[in-house]
Amino acid sequence: MDFSIREANLDDCKDIARMIMELAEYVKLAEHVKVTQKDLEQDGFSSNPLFHGIIAEVPEQHKTKEGHTKIGYALYFYAYSSWSGRAIYMEDLYVMPEYRGKGVGKALISKVAQLALAAGCHQLNFTVLDWNKPSMDFYLSQGCFNITATMGYHYMRCEGEALEHLAQL
Amino acid sequence: MDFSIREANLDDCKDIARMIMELAEYVKLAEHVKVTQKDLEQDGFSSNPLFHGIIAEVPEQHKTKEGHTKIGYALYFYAYSSWSGRAIYMEDLYVMPEYRGKGVGKALISKVAQLALAAGCHQLNFTVLDWNKPSMDFYLSQGCFNITATMGYHYMRCEGEALEHLAQL
Repeated sequence: MDFSIREANLDDCKDIARMIMELAEYVKLAEHVKVTQKDLEQDGFSSNPLFHGIIAEVPEQHKTKEGHTKIGYALYFYAYSSWSGRAIYMEDLYVMPEYRGKGVGKALISKVAQLALAAGCHQLNFTVLDWNKPSMDFYLSQGCFNITATMGYHYMRCEGEALEHLAQL
Repeated sequence: MDFSIREANLDDCKDIARMIMELAEYVKLAEHVKVTQKDLEQDGFSSNPLFHGIIAEVPEQHKTKEGHTKIGYALYFYAYSSWSGRAIYMEDLYVMPEYRGKGVGKALISKVAQLALAAGCHQLNFTVLDWNKPSMDFYLSQGCFNITATMGYHYMRCEGEALEHLAQL
Protein backbone atom coordinates (compact mmCIF):
# COMPACT_ATOMS: atom_id res chain seq x y z
CA MET A 1 0.00 0.00 0.00
CA ASP A 2 1.16 3.50 -0.88
CA PHE A 3 1.70 5.74 2.15
CA SER A 4 4.12 8.37 3.34
CA ILE A 5 5.65 9.17 6.74
CA ARG A 6 6.62 12.71 7.69
CA GLU A 7 7.03 14.99 10.69
CA ALA A 8 3.78 16.56 11.89
CA ASN A 9 2.98 20.24 11.57
CA LEU A 10 0.37 22.64 12.94
CA ASP A 11 -2.19 21.67 10.28
CA ASP A 12 -2.15 18.06 11.47
CA CYS A 13 -3.52 18.83 14.95
CA LYS A 14 -7.16 18.31 13.96
CA ASP A 15 -6.37 14.79 12.73
CA ILE A 16 -4.05 14.06 15.65
CA ALA A 17 -6.83 15.05 18.09
CA ARG A 18 -9.25 12.77 16.19
CA MET A 19 -6.84 9.83 16.27
CA ILE A 20 -5.93 10.39 19.96
CA MET A 21 -9.64 9.89 20.64
CA GLU A 22 -9.84 6.82 18.36
CA LEU A 23 -6.84 5.28 20.18
CA ALA A 24 -8.38 6.05 23.59
CA GLU A 25 -11.64 4.43 22.45
CA TYR A 26 -9.70 1.40 21.22
CA VAL A 27 -8.13 0.94 24.67
CA LYS A 28 -11.52 1.64 26.31
CA LEU A 29 -10.34 4.76 28.16
CA ALA A 30 -11.90 7.58 26.11
CA GLU A 31 -13.21 9.36 29.21
CA HIS A 32 -9.60 10.22 30.15
CA VAL A 33 -9.00 12.43 27.10
CA LYS A 34 -8.95 16.12 28.06
CA VAL A 35 -6.51 17.38 25.40
CA THR A 36 -8.09 19.33 22.53
CA GLN A 37 -6.94 20.27 19.03
CA LYS A 38 -6.15 23.74 20.38
CA ASP A 39 -4.03 22.28 23.23
CA LEU A 40 -2.05 20.25 20.69
CA GLU A 41 -1.50 23.34 18.54
CA GLN A 42 -0.21 25.33 21.51
CA ASP A 43 1.76 22.56 23.23
CA GLY A 44 3.38 20.98 20.18
CA PHE A 45 3.96 23.81 17.77
CA SER A 46 5.12 26.79 19.83
CA SER A 47 8.74 27.96 20.05
CA ASN A 48 9.35 25.46 22.87
CA PRO A 49 7.33 22.35 21.90
CA LEU A 50 6.37 19.89 24.65
CA PHE A 51 6.07 17.00 22.19
CA HIS A 52 6.74 16.11 18.56
CA GLY A 53 4.62 14.16 16.09
CA ILE A 54 4.93 11.89 13.06
CA ILE A 55 2.11 11.47 10.55
CA ALA A 56 1.29 8.56 8.23
CA GLU A 57 -0.64 9.67 5.17
CA VAL A 58 -2.22 7.95 2.17
CA PRO A 59 -2.91 9.46 -1.27
CA GLU A 60 -6.43 10.80 -2.00
CA GLN A 61 -7.46 7.60 -3.81
CA HIS A 62 -6.91 5.56 -0.64
CA LYS A 63 -8.69 7.93 1.76
CA THR A 64 -11.14 6.57 4.36
CA LYS A 65 -14.91 6.48 3.85
CA GLU A 66 -15.06 9.66 5.93
CA GLY A 67 -12.47 11.34 3.70
CA HIS A 68 -9.40 11.13 5.97
CA THR A 69 -5.97 10.83 4.37
CA LYS A 70 -4.05 11.03 7.67
CA ILE A 71 -4.38 7.47 8.92
CA GLY A 72 -1.74 7.04 11.61
CA TYR A 73 0.48 8.99 13.96
CA ALA A 74 3.17 8.78 16.61
CA LEU A 75 3.76 11.31 19.41
CA TYR A 76 7.02 11.48 21.33
CA PHE A 77 9.04 13.74 23.60
CA TYR A 78 12.63 13.82 24.84
CA ALA A 79 13.29 12.04 28.12
CA TYR A 80 16.40 11.48 30.24
CA SER A 81 17.79 8.33 31.78
CA SER A 82 20.11 8.83 34.75
CA TRP A 83 21.92 5.68 33.58
CA SER A 84 22.23 6.22 29.82
CA GLY A 85 21.43 9.89 29.17
CA ARG A 86 19.18 11.34 26.52
CA ALA A 87 16.21 9.16 25.54
CA ILE A 88 12.93 9.35 23.65
CA TYR A 89 9.59 8.49 25.18
CA MET A 90 6.98 7.49 22.60
CA GLU A 91 3.64 8.52 24.05
CA ASP A 92 1.42 7.14 21.27
CA LEU A 93 1.62 4.99 18.17
CA TYR A 94 -1.62 4.48 16.26
CA VAL A 95 -2.77 3.23 12.87
CA MET A 96 -6.46 3.32 11.87
CA PRO A 97 -7.93 -0.22 11.90
CA GLU A 98 -8.53 -0.47 8.14
CA TYR A 99 -4.85 0.34 7.40
CA ARG A 100 -3.25 -2.13 9.82
CA GLY A 101 -1.04 -5.01 8.72
CA LYS A 102 0.45 -3.00 5.86
CA GLY A 103 3.68 -1.80 7.47
CA VAL A 104 2.41 1.63 8.57
CA GLY A 105 3.06 1.06 12.30
CA LYS A 106 6.50 -0.34 11.52
CA ALA A 107 7.31 2.72 9.39
CA LEU A 108 6.12 5.06 12.16
CA ILE A 109 8.18 3.44 14.94
CA SER A 110 11.17 3.21 12.57
CA LYS A 111 10.95 6.96 11.97
CA VAL A 112 10.86 7.58 15.73
CA ALA A 113 13.92 5.33 16.13
CA GLN A 114 15.76 7.25 13.38
CA LEU A 115 15.00 10.56 15.09
CA ALA A 116 16.08 9.10 18.45
CA LEU A 117 19.47 8.03 17.09
CA ALA A 118 19.93 11.31 15.21
CA ALA A 119 19.34 13.19 18.48
CA GLY A 120 21.91 11.07 20.35
CA CYS A 121 19.33 9.06 22.30
CA HIS A 122 20.24 5.59 23.51
CA GLN A 123 16.76 4.45 24.51
CA LEU A 124 13.25 4.45 23.08
CA ASN A 125 10.73 3.96 25.90
CA PHE A 126 6.94 3.58 25.85
CA THR A 127 4.10 1.70 27.51
CA VAL A 128 1.65 -0.83 26.16
CA LEU A 129 -1.46 -2.31 27.78
CA ASP A 130 -0.85 -5.96 28.63
CA TRP A 131 -4.21 -7.11 27.22
CA ASN A 132 -3.43 -5.47 23.86
CA LYS A 133 -1.79 -8.60 22.49
CA PRO A 134 -1.51 -7.50 18.83
CA SER A 135 0.43 -4.37 19.89
CA MET A 136 2.56 -6.24 22.44
CA ASP A 137 3.43 -8.93 19.86
CA PHE A 138 4.27 -6.25 17.29
CA TYR A 139 6.67 -4.45 19.63
CA LEU A 140 8.35 -7.64 20.81
CA SER A 141 8.80 -8.74 17.16
CA GLN A 142 10.59 -5.43 16.50
CA GLY A 143 13.20 -6.11 19.19
CA CYS A 144 11.62 -4.12 22.03
CA PHE A 145 11.78 -5.50 25.56
CA ASN A 146 9.00 -5.64 28.13
CA ILE A 147 10.97 -4.38 31.13
CA THR A 148 7.93 -4.71 33.37
CA ALA A 149 7.95 -8.46 32.69
CA THR A 150 11.73 -8.96 32.60
CA MET A 151 12.97 -6.56 35.27
CA GLY A 152 9.88 -5.76 37.34
CA TYR A 153 9.44 -2.08 36.50
CA HIS A 154 5.96 -0.91 37.45
CA TYR A 155 4.56 2.35 36.11
CA MET A 156 3.28 4.71 38.81
CA ARG A 157 1.16 7.85 38.63
CA CYS A 158 0.02 10.64 40.92
CA GLU A 159 -2.63 13.06 39.67
CA GLY A 160 -5.65 15.14 40.67
CA GLU A 161 -6.30 15.56 44.38
CA ALA A 162 -3.50 13.15 45.28
CA LEU A 163 -1.01 15.38 43.45
CA GLU A 164 -2.37 18.49 45.20
CA HIS A 165 -2.05 16.70 48.54
CA LEU A 166 1.49 15.54 47.79
CA ALA A 167 2.52 19.14 47.05
CA GLN A 168 1.24 20.24 50.46
CA LEU A 169 3.16 17.81 52.68
CA MET B 1 16.22 15.67 61.73
CA ASP B 2 17.38 18.96 60.29
CA PHE B 3 17.60 18.96 56.48
CA SER B 4 16.88 21.27 53.57
CA ILE B 5 15.43 20.72 50.10
CA ARG B 6 16.44 22.91 47.17
CA GLU B 7 16.80 22.88 43.39
CA ALA B 8 20.07 21.36 42.17
CA ASN B 9 22.84 23.38 40.54
CA LEU B 10 26.02 22.62 38.60
CA ASP B 11 28.05 22.09 41.78
CA ASP B 12 25.77 19.22 42.83
CA CYS B 13 26.64 17.00 39.85
CA LYS B 14 29.48 15.20 41.64
CA ASP B 15 27.12 14.15 44.44
CA ILE B 16 24.28 13.38 42.04
CA ALA B 17 26.61 11.07 40.05
CA ARG B 18 27.65 9.39 43.32
CA MET B 19 24.05 8.88 44.43
CA ILE B 20 22.92 7.67 40.96
CA MET B 21 25.51 4.91 41.39
CA GLU B 22 24.40 4.19 44.97
CA LEU B 23 20.78 3.89 43.80
CA ALA B 24 21.78 1.60 40.91
CA GLU B 25 23.75 -0.57 43.36
CA TYR B 26 20.72 -0.66 45.67
CA VAL B 27 18.54 -2.00 42.83
CA LYS B 28 21.36 -4.36 41.76
CA LEU B 29 21.79 -2.81 38.31
CA ALA B 30 25.01 -0.79 38.69
CA GLU B 31 26.47 -2.16 35.45
CA HIS B 32 23.85 -0.15 33.51
CA VAL B 33 25.18 3.24 34.64
CA LYS B 34 27.02 5.01 31.79
CA VAL B 35 26.25 8.62 32.78
CA THR B 36 29.16 10.53 34.33
CA GLN B 37 29.42 13.71 36.40
CA LYS B 38 30.48 15.52 33.22
CA ASP B 39 27.40 14.24 31.33
CA LEU B 40 25.16 15.50 34.14
CA GLU B 41 26.85 18.90 34.05
CA GLN B 42 26.35 19.20 30.29
CA ASP B 43 22.88 17.65 30.06
CA GLY B 44 21.27 19.26 33.09
CA PHE B 45 22.84 22.67 33.36
CA SER B 46 23.17 24.00 29.81
CA SER B 47 20.84 26.62 28.29
CA ASN B 48 18.43 23.84 27.28
CA PRO B 49 18.51 21.35 30.18
CA LEU B 50 17.39 17.77 29.51
CA PHE B 51 16.50 17.19 33.17
CA HIS B 52 16.15 19.02 36.47
CA GLY B 53 17.25 18.02 39.94
CA ILE B 54 16.33 18.47 43.60
CA ILE B 55 18.85 18.04 46.41
CA ALA B 56 18.33 17.09 50.05
CA GLU B 57 21.10 18.39 52.29
CA VAL B 58 21.99 18.13 55.97
CA PRO B 59 24.05 20.59 58.04
CA GLU B 60 27.78 19.85 58.56
CA GLN B 61 27.18 18.34 62.01
CA HIS B 62 25.00 15.61 60.46
CA LYS B 63 27.29 14.75 57.55
CA THR B 64 28.00 11.10 56.68
CA LYS B 65 31.10 9.24 57.87
CA GLU B 66 32.60 9.95 54.44
CA GLY B 67 31.87 13.65 54.83
CA HIS B 68 28.84 13.97 52.51
CA THR B 69 26.19 16.59 53.32
CA LYS B 70 24.11 15.96 50.16
CA ILE B 71 22.18 12.87 51.21
CA GLY B 72 19.28 12.57 48.76
CA TYR B 73 18.11 13.71 45.35
CA ALA B 74 15.33 13.60 42.80
CA LEU B 75 15.72 13.93 39.02
CA TYR B 76 12.81 14.79 36.74
CA PHE B 77 12.01 16.05 33.26
CA TYR B 78 8.93 17.41 31.53
CA ALA B 79 6.77 14.87 29.75
CA TYR B 80 3.53 15.07 27.76
CA SER B 81 0.35 13.04 27.98
CA SER B 82 -1.82 13.00 24.86
CA TRP B 83 -4.80 12.70 27.23
CA SER B 84 -4.03 15.30 29.90
CA GLY B 85 -1.21 17.47 28.53
CA ARG B 86 1.92 18.58 30.29
CA ALA B 87 3.28 16.14 32.88
CA ILE B 88 6.40 15.48 34.92
CA TYR B 89 8.33 12.25 34.81
CA MET B 90 10.37 11.61 37.95
CA GLU B 91 13.36 9.57 36.83
CA ASP B 92 14.93 9.02 40.28
CA LEU B 93 14.15 9.54 43.95
CA TYR B 94 16.85 8.48 46.40
CA VAL B 95 17.74 8.96 50.05
CA MET B 96 20.96 7.52 51.51
CA PRO B 97 20.17 4.50 53.75
CA GLU B 98 21.26 6.11 57.05
CA TYR B 99 18.87 9.06 56.48
CA ARG B 100 15.73 7.09 55.60
CA GLY B 101 12.54 7.17 57.65
CA LYS B 102 13.01 10.82 58.58
CA GLY B 103 10.77 12.47 55.98
CA VAL B 104 13.48 13.25 53.42
CA GLY B 105 11.93 11.19 50.60
CA LYS B 106 8.52 12.68 51.36
CA ALA B 107 9.99 16.20 51.22
CA LEU B 108 11.72 15.44 47.90
CA ILE B 109 8.62 14.05 46.17
CA SER B 110 6.53 16.87 47.63
CA LYS B 111 8.91 19.40 46.08
CA VAL B 112 8.61 17.64 42.70
CA ALA B 113 4.80 17.74 43.03
CA GLN B 114 4.93 21.48 43.84
CA LEU B 115 7.04 22.15 40.77
CA ALA B 116 4.71 19.98 38.65
CA LEU B 117 1.64 21.98 39.71
CA ALA B 118 3.46 25.29 39.32
CA ALA B 119 4.35 24.30 35.74
CA GLY B 120 0.75 23.38 34.92
CA CYS B 121 1.34 19.63 34.95
CA HIS B 122 -1.56 17.30 35.74
CA GLN B 123 0.43 14.12 36.22
CA LEU B 124 3.53 12.96 38.04
CA ASN B 125 4.74 9.69 36.52
CA PHE B 126 7.59 7.38 37.50
CA THR B 127 8.54 3.70 37.75
CA VAL B 128 9.37 1.53 40.73
CA LEU B 129 10.74 -2.03 40.83
CA ASP B 130 8.05 -4.39 42.06
CA TRP B 131 10.40 -6.20 44.48
CA ASN B 132 11.34 -2.88 46.13
CA LYS B 133 8.53 -3.14 48.68
CA PRO B 134 9.62 -0.26 50.96
CA SER B 135 9.59 2.14 48.00
CA MET B 136 6.34 0.76 46.57
CA ASP B 137 4.62 1.04 49.98
CA PHE B 138 5.94 4.58 50.41
CA TYR B 139 4.54 5.72 47.05
CA LEU B 140 1.18 4.04 47.57
CA SER B 141 0.91 5.64 51.03
CA GLN B 142 1.45 9.05 49.37
CA GLY B 143 -1.57 8.60 47.09
CA CYS B 144 0.27 7.36 43.99
CA PHE B 145 -1.31 4.62 41.86
CA ASN B 146 0.37 1.57 40.40
CA ILE B 147 -1.11 1.76 36.89
CA THR B 148 0.74 -1.38 35.85
CA ALA B 149 -1.23 -3.30 38.49
CA THR B 150 -4.55 -1.45 38.11
CA MET B 151 -4.72 -0.76 34.37
CA GLY B 152 -2.19 -3.15 32.85
CA TYR B 153 0.38 -0.66 31.57
CA HIS B 154 3.68 -2.40 30.82
CA TYR B 155 6.87 -0.43 30.35
CA MET B 156 8.71 -1.19 27.11
CA ARG B 157 12.21 -0.34 25.91
CA CYS B 158 14.23 -0.53 22.73
CA GLU B 159 17.96 0.18 22.90
CA GLY B 160 21.37 -0.78 21.51
CA GLU B 161 21.43 -2.95 18.40
CA ALA B 162 17.64 -3.37 18.48
CA LEU B 163 17.22 0.40 18.23
CA GLU B 164 19.73 0.60 15.35
CA HIS B 165 17.82 -2.19 13.59
CA LEU B 166 14.45 -0.51 14.15
CA ALA B 167 15.78 2.68 12.56
CA GLN B 168 16.77 0.76 9.42
CA LEU B 169 13.43 -0.92 8.63
